[in-house]
Parts: sequence; structure tokens; C-alpha cells
Amino acid sequence: MGYRIENATVVTCEDNQEVRVLKNATVITDGGEISYVGIDPPETKGFTLINGTGKALIPGLVNAHTHIPMTLLRSYADDLELHTWLYQHIFPIEAKLTADDIYWGSQLALLEMIAGGTTCFNDMYYSVDRIAEATATSGLKALLSRGLINGAELDDYTNDDRLKEAVSVYEQWNGAEEGRIRIALAPHALYTCAPGYIRTIRDTAEKLGTIIHTHVDETVKEHNDCLNQYGKTPVKHLYDLGLFDIPTIAAHCVHVTEGDMDKMKEKNVTFVHNPGSNLKLGSGIAPVPTAMEKGLNVALGTDGASSNNNLNMWEELNLSALIHKGFSLDPLAVKAQDAFRMATVNGAIALGFNNSGRIQEGFRADMVLLDLNSPHYYPDHNLVSNIAYSAQASDVETVFVDGKILYHKGEYKTLDKERIIHEVNRIHKALF
Amino acid sequence: MGYRIENATVVTCEDNQEVRVLKNATVITDGGEISYVGIDPPETKGFTLINGTGKALIPGLVNAHTHIPMTLLRSYADDLELHTWLYQHIFPIEAKLTADDIYWGSQLALLEMIAGGTTCFNDMYYSVDRIAEATATSGLKALLSRGLINGAELDDYTNDDRLKEAVSVYEQWNGAEEGRIRIALAPHALYTCAPGYIRTIRDTAEKLGTIIHTHVDETVKEHNDCLNQYGKTPVKHLYDLGLFDIPTIAAHCVHVTEGDMDKMKEKNVTFVHNPGSNLKLGSGIAPVPTAMEKGLNVALGTDGASSNNNLNMWEELNLSALIHKGFSLDPLAVKAQDAFRMATVNGAIALGFNNSGRIQEGFRADMVLLDLNSPHYYPDHNLVSNIAYSAQASDVETVFVDGKILYHKGEYKTLDKERIIHEVNRIHKALF
Repeated sequence: MGYRIENATVVTCEDNQEVRVLKNATVITDGGEISYVGIDPPETKGFTLINGTGKALIPGLVNAHTHIPMTLLRSYADDLELHTWLYQHIFPIEAKLTADDIYWGSQLALLEMIAGGTTCFNDMYYSVDRIAEATATSGLKALLSRGLINGAELDDYTNDDRLKEAVSVYEQWNGAEEGRIRIALAPHALYTCAPGYIRTIRDTAEKLGTIIHTHVDETVKEHNDCLNQYGKTPVKHLYDLGLFDIPTIAAHCVHVTEGDMDKMKEKNVTFVHNPGSNLKLGSGIAPVPTAMEKGLNVALGTDGASSNNNLNMWEELNLSALIHKGFSLDPLAVKAQDAFRMATVNGAIALGFNNSGRIQEGFRADMVLLDLNSPHYYPDHNLVSNIAYSAQASDVETVFVDGKILYHKGEYKTLDKERIIHEVNRIHKALF
Repeated sequence: MGYRIENATVVTCEDNQEVRVLKNATVITDGGEISYVGIDPPETKGFTLINGTGKALIPGLVNAHTHIPMTLLRSYADDLELHTWLYQHIFPIEAKLTADDIYWGSQLALLEMIAGGTTCFNDMYYSVDRIAEATATSGLKALLSRGLINGAELDDYTNDDRLKEAVSVYEQWNGAEEGRIRIALAPHALYTCAPGYIRTIRDTAEKLGTIIHTHVDETVKEHNDCLNQYGKTPVKHLYDLGLFDIPTIAAHCVHVTEGDMDKMKEKNVTFVHNPGSNLKLGSGIAPVPTAMEKGLNVALGTDGASSNNNLNMWEELNLSALIHKGFSLDPLAVKAQDAFRMATVNGAIALGFNNSGRIQEGFRADMVLLDLNSPHYYPDHNLVSNIAYSAQASDVETVFVDGKILYHKGEYKTLDKERIIHEVNRIHKALF
């Protein structure tokens, strides 16, 4: 049993197809799955009826790269030079964050993500057990990882405390909550991980059978330092270390070359575009149109709230459909349809939730109902264009994950908003 | 008598100052004016009390360049090459729009602008009498203009029908609605107006004592064509024609040179940045950081909804604070404070509403109350950063113009949303 959503405008995301818009369609969910999508539905009994008139049903948004506890640092340090921002503001305050702070910061992020229609996310931070705990409560899907940085000069990286912690989190949480939570391994970046450490993480991931999540080629400095130190680009360096033999999610990719992208395609590495963060930190504009031409899986992320400053995937969708046109003087670069796929199905595939990200029979019922009754949706020329160029996060009316409603008209079904805001205010007063 | 808003966080925009944030402040309005701003308010009797706890009071947003009836063409033609978009889609459908269509399209735009906290706008289109009529009803402030294009090969441009219409609209509407509506003259662009026509419009504006609103240097093609045809840049061409002797609002300015900006500064020409439209149409990225360095008045606009695709000034504010950092690889380019001034006080000054755009005693009570009780406003580190990088149009709770409430929690006080949507749907069915 489940929901029967009638008379909605349904935006599907089938494989290798244009994003389709079905008008006056019915979608039926049963036991967490989508059991019917179409305009000639079977009769059903006992399903909860939802009137979809004036509403759009779309796949839940997938935030393919973030650091959710950093909501605590939202608007804490802005409009600063990158080095000043990171070393004088972000790192010192992060050093003070307790596991409990991280837990409440994560809950704040979960509130924001759910209200904005994000049903699945990919996180890298520390105290991941507490992030997993918060995520479990929320009902969202996530691929979580402990950011791995080797401060210690060890020969035997297998005894590295952080890596041990990451493996322990994997053992405890991977596949938990009926598969809603998965754990990746996350070498933070090539400039914070020695080659031997990256190789060890790679081997560990292979043994565990999990995914790699890492930052790649975010800044000109990272790119040039890698060329100087290793005589090759960041992608080539990681490729040569064998990292990409493991399914890999590469965040940022701002300065990757054409040759790098060929290597990423060869190894099926996902290119996560984080336009808001890349713009705000002055990192640059990632070569998304070329990545698309080369057939890479391009997904979208918000990055952390300290460099964005929110977890609003609608803004990333909008930015990704806009900035490449302006930057390349080509109004055909990254169309609305492309951006929509990046924000949904491409992210689900990257995170290993292959049965999510589409409104299609047999897929998990991770879906968002949008209220179209705002002036910015009229007239009704083209819903996908309206979603890419005009929609707002606040248009989200109802959020389903695995066929369960997590949010409806401002009301959270799994999280206690008042308590979370109270705790965040308490932490804010104590820390800042 | 008026309103007494207590315990609000007030974002002021005083002249030549940093944007100030006053916590737990009181703002009192009286007869359309702001009569008090501060933390030690006088006692009052008979004023309507508004509890500002958990809310921010900011100046109303000013959309300094738009074509409001084009909401009818929202998402009608996207992701197309500019020439195809304009000549195969936009111009043919515009040719079919009646004055009545323009009236209802304007009303749709007014709904959207009010809900998003825009209190004042600068429009260029045709059937301006109907746009003025809709604006009068709405309660918003506006500088309206008839786009002037000289199709006819006339020697005596003073007899041009469009210019005659523009003058007649000026005579009928300039200063109407207690000064809420003003009329500018609008030579559409140098590539649609011969030099003699521009000179005639300039002389007419001088005689009327009004403002000029025009498109300047929007595309590479316009820039290069002007160099080829006149041997000078668009700005130099208009400067030499004397246009800038009249107070001028120059929209786009994407390809202006440093020398052009010096000329604009000399003549106090306002540079209207339209980041959403410039990106979407692949026009490019305007040199806003240089314009700011040179001390130009930089304001923000959405352009029409067919090239944006909404009239959401929060997106323009966000884009203007983001894209220049990414484009120049400088995280200090266009700070949150700068973008906020562009979206408010700078626009008000450009449009000649010099007593608007600030929360300051003696200024008009054109103000927006924002609800800060959403996850994306927590924790409370920096409200101006939150406004530039995290806010959404839907955070707007109450909109005041001249001390009158036009909108409160989704309810329109001056416009009939249901009727407008009904008429827009009717026009959509008939036309498309």
C-alpha cells in the first residue's frame, strides 16, 4: 500500500531520454517503490489519494557533494581571500566543534535539505557516526564519509587512526536503515594525502567494495602545485595511483583538462559540479559543457554552507544552467534539461542509489511535489524551463523518500525543528 | 499615523556608509514616511504595532531594468541561439500581443514582484498606458517608458509616432499616483535608433526634464557593429550624441571598456547589471568590479522574464555577489554589502526616487519585512551575508510602499491574484 497521486504534471528522468513531462498523470507508490506512472492507471483500493492538480511531481534532488555540519559556519566568514578564510576562520573554529555540535549542525542541514526537496546527499566530514545518527532520524538517503587527511608521517597507513575510524563507521553504518545510509571512503584531496596514503585508502575501498569521494582540482593553486610536485595534473596523479579503479565521485573538477576528462570517462568517474561554491570562493568555472560532450556523468553539489551559503539545490540547478552560457558566450551551453538531470538522476547514479532519481516504475519513491500556484510558474509554456530558470526551493510542498512523507507544507514529519533551532542557537552563543 | 515595527533586525542603507545592521530596533512610519529608526524609540499612540521579533526589515528591492509584460513569454523559448530566439520566437509572438494582453502580463509581473519584495521598478515596453494603469492599481513605484525604435526613415523625428506616444504617456502619467509613477524616454538601443533619432529623443527628454532609459553594449555583436559603423564604442557613440547630458540609466553594459566607464562616471550614467539575463542569453559577464572601482552607480535588474526567466531580484543579488568572484578568480570581488546596495538604494537613486531605498528617517516607507525563521537563516552570524548568499524571495513576509502594506503572508492587498491567473491562462490558450 502507498500513495496514489492523481492529475499531476510528472517530470520523469528515464535513462538516455529527454526529460519527459507527462500532464494529468497518475503516480502510484507501493511499499516504498513507484508501481505505476502514466495516464491510464489501474484501479486501486486503500491507497492514500493525493490531488496533484496544479502540482508537479519530480524526482527528489540529489546533493552530490556537501559537508552538512558546516551549516554552523553559514555566513561566519565571507568575502575573504581563500587562505585567510580557511586558515584564519574556518580551520580554527572547526577545531572547536564537538561531536555534539556536529550532530546538531547536521540536523540543521537536514531541515534545510528536506524543505528544499533534497532526498539524497553525499557528505564528507568527521564525527560521521553522529552525522549518520542524525541522517537515520531524518529519513533521508545519504552516502557519508570521514574526510581522510594524513597529518602523521606513517609508513604503514593501514594503522592510521582516521582510516581505522572510517572503516569502523563503514562496518557500523553501511547499508543501515534498510539501505538508506551508505558509507564511502574519502581521501580529502591530493594536497592533504600522500600518495601512499591514497593507495592504502584505495586498497581499503576495494576490499570493502565501496565508493571513493574526494576533492579534485578545485583551485589553480592545487592544479599548479600538483604539476610542480608530481609533474602531472591532479586527475593524472590520482589515475596513476589507481584511485579511479574504484567507483569515484570527484568534487569540483574546476581546472581539469580535456585529457583529464578522457581519463575520467575511461574510469567512469563522476564529475560533481559545485557552481555556487566555486564562484563564491573565486575558484573558477568548471568545464561542464566539455565534460558533458565527453559523456561524463555530471552531478551537482552545494559544497558546505560556509562557502555557498546554503544547501539549496535549486540555486545550483539554476547556476549550472546559466553560468556556462555566459562564460562561453554560448546560449546553448548546459540546457535546462541537462541541469535537471545533473540535479537528480545523475547524482543518484553517482552515489550508488541506482534505483533512485527517476519517476519510473520499479524505482524507489524518492519524489518531490512542487506547488505550481505561484506567479513565477505562469503561463505554463515549459515546466522544465520553469524549474531550471524560475523555480524556488520554497515551491516544494511534499517530500517523499522510499514512499514515506518526510515533509508537507512546512511541517517536518521526522525532525523537531524547534529543538534543532534551539540547540543551534545555544551552540552559536557558546562558540562564537 | 502609521506602523510601529518593534524588535526587528533593521538593515539600513545610509549614504556613503557600510550597510548597517541594527538589532532589536524600532521603525516608525507616519504618513508614508519613515519617522523613526533606532533602539530608543519615542512613545506613540494609535500606531499599528508589528512585532518584528525573528524578522528583518530592509529597504524594498529596486528592479532597475525590466520589461514586465514579457512574463507572458516566460519559458516560451529557451536554450536557443540569440538570433533564433529573438527573430523566430520573441518578435513574432510580440507582434500578436494586444494592449489587453500587455495589461494582464503586467499584472502577472506585479504579482511576482510584490511577492518577492520588489517595491520599485524600471520598465521599457509598449502600450505603456496599460502598464501604467496596472502599476497604479498595484501600489508599486515605477519609472515607465515606451521603447523607441525608428523603423521609418524620417527626417523630422519629432513627428515620429512612437515618440509622440511616449510624450503623450509622459504628459498623462508622469508624477501620477502621488508621484509613484514617473515616465522616462527610452531610445531602445543604438542599433535600433539612428543618430538623428537619438538626438531628437535627447532633446525631447531635456525639454520634459525627464530621464533616459536605454540598452547599452549588451552583446559582442552590438559592440563590434558599432565600432564598424561609427568607429567608436557604443558608450562613446551615445556620449558624442549628447545623450548622457540627460540623467541616463544604461542597461547591460556587458562589453563597456575602461574608457567607456570613465565617460559614464563623468556624466553620472547608471550602470544596470542584469546578470541572469546576460548569462542566459550568452551575452557575457559585465565588468561590475571595475565599474564599482570607478565609482559608478551600479544598480541591478532582472531584464524581461523571457530571458531570465523570472523577476526575482534575490537571484540577481545572489548572482551579482557570486559570478564576478568566479569569473575573476577573486573572492573579494563584489561583496555582499555591495550587492545589497545595488539591489536597493543604488536602484532608487537611478530611477529618480531619491527619497527611497533606505531605512532612514525622512525617507519614504518602501520596506520589506523578511521572515528569518527558516533553517537557511541559522545560525545568526551575519544577516547581510545571509541575504546575499542564502535568502530566498519567499522569505518576504510583508511589503510596504509609501507606508502602505501591499502584501502580507501570501495575501495581496491591491491585486486580484485569481483573476490575473485566470486572464493569463486565457491569453496563453488563445495565443500559443
